[in-house]
Amino acid sequence: MSHNSFGNLLKFTTWGESHGEAIGCVVDGFPANIKIDVKYIQKKLDLRKPGQSKFTTQRNEDDKIKILSGVFEGKSTGSPISFIIYNTDQKSKDYSDIKNKFRPGHADYTYWSKYKNYDYRGGGRSSARETAMRVAAGAISEILIQNSKYKKIKIESAVIQIGSERIDGLKWDSKIINKNPFFSPDKKMIPIWEKLILDHRKKGSSLGAIIEVRVSNMPVNIGEPIYQKLDSELSKAIMSINAVKGIEFGAGFNIIEQDGLTSSDKMEIKKNKIKFLTNNSGGILGGISSGQDIVFRYVVKPTSSVLAKKETISKNKKNTTISTKGRHDPCVGIRAVPVGIAMTAFVLADLIMIDNSKKIIKNIS
Amino acid sequence: MSHNSFGNLLKFTTWGESHGEAIGCVVDGFPANIKIDVKYIQKKLDLRKPGQSKFTTQRNEDDKIKILSGVFEGKSTGSPISFIIYNTDQKSKDYSDIKNKFRPGHADYTYWSKYKNYDYRGGGRSSARETAMRVAAGAISEILIQNSKYKKIKIESAVIQIGSERIDGLKWDSKIINKNPFFSPDKKMIPIWEKLILDHRKKGSSLGAIIEVRVSNMPVNIGEPIYQKLDSELSKAIMSINAVKGIEFGAGFNIIEQDGLTSSDKMEIKKNKIKFLTNNSGGILGGISSGQDIVFRYVVKPTSSVLAKKETISKNKKNTTISTKGRHDPCVGIRAVPVGIAMTAFVLADLIMIDNSKKIIKNIS
Amino acid sequence: MSHNSFGNLLKFTTWGESHGEAIGCVVDGFPANIKIDVKYIQKKLDLRKPGQSKFTTQRNEDDKIKILSGVFEGKSTGSPISFIIYNTDQKSKDYSDIKNKFRPGHADYTYWSKYKNYDYRGGGRSSARETAMRVAAGAISEILIQNSKYKKIKIESAVIQIGSERIDGLKWDSKIINKNPFFSPDKKMIPIWEKLILDHRKKGSSLGAIIEVRVSNMPVNIGEPIYQKLDSELSKAIMSINAVKGIEFGAGFNIIEQDGLTSSDKMEIKKNKIKFLTNNSGGILGGISSGQDIVFRYVVKPTSSVLAKKETISKNKKNTTISTKGRHDPCVGIRAVPVGIAMTAFVLADLIMIDNSKKIIKNIS
Amino acid sequence: MSHNSFGNLLKFTTWGESHGEAIGCVVDGFPANIKIDVKYIQKKLDLRKPGQSKFTTQRNEDDKIKILSGVFEGKSTGSPISFIIYNTDQKSKDYSDIKNKFRPGHADYTYWSKYKNYDYRGGGRSSARETAMRVAAGAISEILIQNSKYKKIKIESAVIQIGSERIDGLKWDSKIINKNPFFSPDKKMIPIWEKLILDHRKKGSSLGAIIEVRVSNMPVNIGEPIYQKLDSELSKAIMSINAVKGIEFGAGFNIIEQDGLTSSDKMEIKKNKIKFLTNNSGGILGGISSGQDIVFRYVVKPTSSVLAKKETISKNKKNTTISTKGRHDPCVGIRAVPVGIAMTAFVLADLIMIDNSKKIIKNIS
Repeated sequence: MSHNSFGNLLKFTTWGESHGEAIGCVVDGFPANIKIDVKYIQKKLDLRKPGQSKFTTQRNEDDKIKILSGVFEGKSTGSPISFIIYNTDQKSKDYSDIKNKFRPGHADYTYWSKYKNYDYRGGGRSSARETAMRVAAGAISEILIQNSKYKKIKIESAVIQIGSERIDGLKWDSKIINKNPFFSPDKKMIPIWEKLILDHRKKGSSLGAIIEVRVSNMPVNIGEPIYQKLDSELSKAIMSINAVKGIEFGAGFNIIEQDGLTSSDKMEIKKNKIKFLTNNSGGILGGISSGQDIVFRYVVKPTSSVLAKKETISKNKKNTTISTKGRHDPCVGIRAVPVGIAMTAFVLADLIMIDNSKKIIKNIS
Repeated sequence: MSHNSFGNLLKFTTWGESHGEAIGCVVDGFPANIKIDVKYIQKKLDLRKPGQSKFTTQRNEDDKIKILSGVFEGKSTGSPISFIIYNTDQKSKDYSDIKNKFRPGHADYTYWSKYKNYDYRGGGRSSARETAMRVAAGAISEILIQNSKYKKIKIESAVIQIGSERIDGLKWDSKIINKNPFFSPDKKMIPIWEKLILDHRKKGSSLGAIIEVRVSNMPVNIGEPIYQKLDSELSKAIMSINAVKGIEFGAGFNIIEQDGLTSSDKMEIKKNKIKFLTNNSGGILGGISSGQDIVFRYVVKPTSSVLAKKETISKNKKNTTISTKGRHDPCVGIRAVPVGIAMTAFVLADLIMIDNSKKIIKNIS
Repeated sequence: MSHNSFGNLLKFTTWGESHGEAIGCVVDGFPANIKIDVKYIQKKLDLRKPGQSKFTTQRNEDDKIKILSGVFEGKSTGSPISFIIYNTDQKSKDYSDIKNKFRPGHADYTYWSKYKNYDYRGGGRSSARETAMRVAAGAISEILIQNSKYKKIKIESAVIQIGSERIDGLKWDSKIINKNPFFSPDKKMIPIWEKLILDHRKKGSSLGAIIEVRVSNMPVNIGEPIYQKLDSELSKAIMSINAVKGIEFGAGFNIIEQDGLTSSDKMEIKKNKIKFLTNNSGGILGGISSGQDIVFRYVVKPTSSVLAKKETISKNKKNTTISTKGRHDPCVGIRAVPVGIAMTAFVLADLIMIDNSKKIIKNIS
Repeated sequence: MSHNSFGNLLKFTTWGESHGEAIGCVVDGFPANIKIDVKYIQKKLDLRKPGQSKFTTQRNEDDKIKILSGVFEGKSTGSPISFIIYNTDQKSKDYSDIKNKFRPGHADYTYWSKYKNYDYRGGGRSSARETAMRVAAGAISEILIQNSKYKKIKIESAVIQIGSERIDGLKWDSKIINKNPFFSPDKKMIPIWEKLILDHRKKGSSLGAIIEVRVSNMPVNIGEPIYQKLDSELSKAIMSINAVKGIEFGAGFNIIEQDGLTSSDKMEIKKNKIKFLTNNSGGILGGISSGQDIVFRYVVKPTSSVLAKKETISKNKKNTTISTKGRHDPCVGIRAVPVGIAMTAFVLADLIMIDNSKKIIKNIS
């Protein structure tokens, strides 16, 4: 166990505070001899980077990733891979407000209570800034998958709902997802969400989002029951992302509307291949991938930092108000998309390696 | 890591197949010198036991728990506590159907594909029978909590929805939950659910359920960011339970309907005490308990085993049909209630011990 | 982490006290579809079993092993394998002596101090009886190795010194090791050790032993630097065995007598094969197996339980004496031999699986 | 599990190659609110630093440690503490020799075989340079102990033998250990070792060393049987240090010369206090500290890198010779002393935290 590590055979450990000198991540257990393209990793980070559009925070973070170890002459060495991003946007500003008051909906109060001394600047360790390092760890695990026998695995993710505005589920256009500021897979929603967000920003408010992840070309057999089930590991991964309040697989909570005759995905043989007729299970049966697409959704609450004044309390137990100035995401869920992909990729790479560890038998390996 | 273990400092490992000779569980890391009341554990198991009412499976399992180690003269010794339940209802019956065909919605196909050789009788390891051992591990962790400085913690859970019929959220009557066959907290729902279930059973069908867990008198500070957050650990725990398809905390997926002005729980000082005005967060901020009640919900899909005939395929890749005879729960979600409580108790006990491990500083401990 | 578990990908957990109802072990992570011969496991246990000769304790334990889960129709299922041995020799006798006094050299005092309540009968959990379960876990990991691509690996172990009497290092006759009551590889030592032990038993005393382990046909590449080095993992494993006070690899402590010109094992190419000219390293370089034989030795202290009266103290802090009646090994080191083999086999199987987990790359796997 | 992490509740992860841009370490699980004196950590590092005397390598590494996270306003925050040392002495030199040939006694061959691609410059990851980060992790765990209720614990270590020249065991003068270039506790040995080492250096050779560690004011109860015993964890820790070939506790291998009447440490009550009359056990009984001093020794082989020409082979399987030019320690065991102290401190801090985690019971905590 380790509070700031994630994974089993493949493991990453993140460190660093939002406004410290740097943030970083160490990936351990990564196989040797795999070509590492830093540009690929940087590209993934750029998708999460603030300041990409007027719909995300205007904070100016370069998020320039650097590899300090574990890669030699362009390839992994089998040793721990150490990533670092130096923080550049640490202008010394006035933190007196968040130093002395708790921002509602933030971890300020619990960090203060648990740790007594903590780096409160910009949320310190509880800041979404930490997720940059998850993206790096996820990107390198995508490279691992691309170099494995399961290289066809494809992980896609998009925002499917902002506020009450949801996409038409059938309108999933992979090609446009990364080409609009909302990671929307449905063209129609772009102007709708744009107006919605600008309206809320004007009011000094913010919005939540629901995000869907789809993994296609997924091999069967990944996941280790009873306590390292694929859905269980993915839930742990996704629920550790800031501001996520729920996760559901396949039909999810709506499965309650079905009965036992319709909810189970029927199987049939077609051209000697196993086919499932529906995907209520989200591609996982008994905690093991079934070969169907893995499909899950998670909800990100509205950004807690808003300009509008909110009632709160101070550390010395007085009632007061707070208005979080600064450059905040009007819908932080948008920037969660690349983070969710990263966590998914990491979980898959880890469980694939575990599955492979069993293949040492003479007549199988 | 360990596929069949759960927990960190406090850890349990389950073993055993549905129709094997016995099932068991080893709890490690349990502190010494705590009085262990086996009757308390048995009582918890009896809540999950099949055959309790006509609304659960009529299978006849005694679920008589026995402790084989780690308890001496009525108290824990600090050594691993080994639980065993000998299977008594293993009548040798005809398994040819599930031996050769995959039951839709079950783990039959993925277990067969992943493990090649596995004990398919009654679902083997993927059977809900395994959850009996979670209840034992949970019960003993409740005993641990009751003997700790956090002994006031109270974990309650109830079914809040079966099929489309949901309770009135304000009608949560703790006293009736364990006194009706549905773990309903709302008297009004009892006849409604009764009729609903009997109707579905008649049709050879089944129903799903939504379950809510509420932890009151919860201390602040429990949970270890970034990757052992309280909500993340609970999600891993709950999502590992058979047939669970989703989990949400506090306002959950519905938080999408709120905006940043209302979604954050406001704090105020009242009589020198910190108060939260709402509980959209479900009692967890930044992965650490805030002192509010912990509230979460999870959905259990309709029992996959139904009497009605379903299309499926056989192991030798032929299209066929299957009708799962035998004694099945018309709504397996009901019996998930004590399992969810058990997993919650275990997660809390484990994280409380981890939190306590830090308290070694001179002027704090 | 888990106090009573050992291993990483492959993991075993032991439970049970010396005079409880049973002892057991759960092996998790064992691959599916491997033929499990319980007789092979029983044969290994019989080598450790007390009462085999007049040079070991005359306690009468059947050590009849039973598998309760994880094996179906003679083959592993991929689920946890649960072993159990019911204790048959639990005659209710008078434990007042060890209940109230600390036996010098035993764990009585530290268990009493740490756990307050513990099962003191026959040493409880600190008894060498626990090692029976290591032998079972080791035997099944030997079966795993025999079914892997490294099936030629051969683990041998023998006693090389009892008291001051050491074998001639060149006289290692594999064929006789299991055919004499001392696991001696050198025929000449048998009568010498026999006399030595009988003399000490007559005096109510006991003797220590040094044991050597040799692994031949060892593949290169096993071990995971920096903190899961092969020698580091083996040391953890062996040092966890009761009464072991030291371990050394290759030339071991005697390497101090060499200098940098002679101590490094020279390499040469002979018939296009890599050859090492000496084996001072014990087959491990940088924590990774080099393909040479793995060679290490460990020392087991003289049995602490002796008939002769010893000064000690009581739990109520009085000076007193104790004489441990009963049936004790005059040289407990002898029965450590199969335990050391078991731990070695388990470490190798675990690290082989870890090494294999990396082989998922397209052009390697 | 994690190849490059060490510890359980308290855990550190090291990264970085000898001639990469930097080396680093992340310490996780460290309690909040403890004053961190970087100068104390630097002082510990300086003890291990090369170039301190003519008896260690003349390589010029600054080993200037920097903390990048987890410390705020001089105190720990409860978040991961990230250490970094930028490598300054990376002069681009000619590595063709070690690139193409295996240095006998080094990890060159096994790293090449296992990892194919690895950073061979200066040994890369297998270099003793990695141990600088262990010293940092150890120093901060010493700070933890000093702030705990066990603040009186004192860890001392000294070289007790170089080549065949051993100190007089009774001449342990703590005050001089850090004041001579050999960490000798016995003044008499200083000129003897000086001559011995200079003689060997002249011959282009090197020497091994035996190091003793003594922990005084050790509390009873530390260590978690059966598989996290104090001696087992210390052995894993020490055996992971480069070039260590053996470890022994208390009387160690020499206990073979004793019998069961003398080898067990007798206990007596003196002035109502428990006293042990000898310390053959090295302060550990049944894997738990007994309150006596912990005493163990380990052997470090002669430096493998020597100036004198040695026969070896090349990567393309030709016989050749190698002479390791450059600045090497004539007795690398000397600089292992602070590393052994660091690993000991870390193991103790980790196990103390684990022990403390159990103290949550109402009437104990």
